[in-house]
Amino acid sequence: MEFTIRAATLEDCKDISRMILELAEYEKVSDQVKIAQRDLEQDGFSKNPFFHGIIAEVPEHLKSKEGHTKVGYSLYFYTYSSWKGRAVYMEDLYVMPEFRGKGIGKALMSKVSQLGLAAGCTQLNFTVLDWNKSSLDFYLKQGCWDVTSDLGYHCMRCEGDALEHLAQGGL
Amino acid sequence: MEFTIRAATLEDCKDISRMILELAEYEKVSDQVKIAQRDLEQDGFSKNPFFHGIIAEVPEHLKSKEGHTKVGYSLYFYTYSSWKGRAVYMEDLYVMPEFRGKGIGKALMSKVSQLGLAAGCTQLNFTVLDWNKSSLDFYLKQGCWDVTSDLGYHCMRCEGDALEHLAQGGL
Repeated sequence: MEFTIRAATLEDCKDISRMILELAEYEKVSDQVKIAQRDLEQDGFSKNPFFHGIIAEVPEHLKSKEGHTKVGYSLYFYTYSSWKGRAVYMEDLYVMPEFRGKGIGKALMSKVSQLGLAAGCTQLNFTVLDWNKSSLDFYLKQGCWDVTSDLGYHCMRCEGDALEHLAQGGL
Repeated sequence: MEFTIRAATLEDCKDISRMILELAEYEKVSDQVKIAQRDLEQDGFSKNPFFHGIIAEVPEHLKSKEGHTKVGYSLYFYTYSSWKGRAVYMEDLYVMPEFRGKGIGKALMSKVSQLGLAAGCTQLNFTVLDWNKSSLDFYLKQGCWDVTSDLGYHCMRCEGDALEHLAQGGL
């Protein structure tokens, strides 16, 4: 299928916001999404952005049933490992259901890898939900490995009142 | 115990490098550390740094057996959640064994939380090894929760030849 992968711009935030919601619905957590188009514009496209994005786009004649030509995206940012140094983190990788199985997801992930290597990164990191077997299989086939299963790493989070308490000195 | 928490500077990289190795030895993976003082200087203290750091320091009269006054550190950087927005990630939290149990670790984590909240973050994220029960208990006591156990998130990684292949288009 004919498609292009390119850097996201401010004008893409409306479609990214739409696809973030679609992805959250797929992951069964759409009530968790607190981010709207305006947040993406502010956090990704001002000085010292918190993330970068890439967009998968199809030509007008291949647009989706609802008329969308922006059919996939990935958000990524640079992180750091105190053992291995520079790393790139892929926050989201999403392709609209009717455009799956055409190599768009792999092309998006490939682009993030290229950008990471070009920035001197030695690792691409991301998370996957353990029930999402088709995604997990795809990633394993690409040579990725499961740090949680293999080494026992658990993702931890502090937020809300607990984060406020911690900032005030903790319990 | 008397100690101060302050932002890390270029001059702290030698001690941070030493403590990264100490932490890796504690986590039984010191052979995995590929980062030296010079990498930290370059990646953390040039334009667009990949991480930030804070240092725990004790006065000269309380220095360690080996003569160190820099006795703990945390590395952190800003990340992004496409559901919740700005987040801060605590890459390392370390206090030298002879200075543990005096509130230094909690003070470091509290400082990272303060910095995160000040930057508009709503989450503090980090990882913990599943066998490290004392750290896990400490974090849970602070109100943190285990995203891997509770929601099934697994950390995934691509590196080395697999990352190069992915950048070239994937398998």
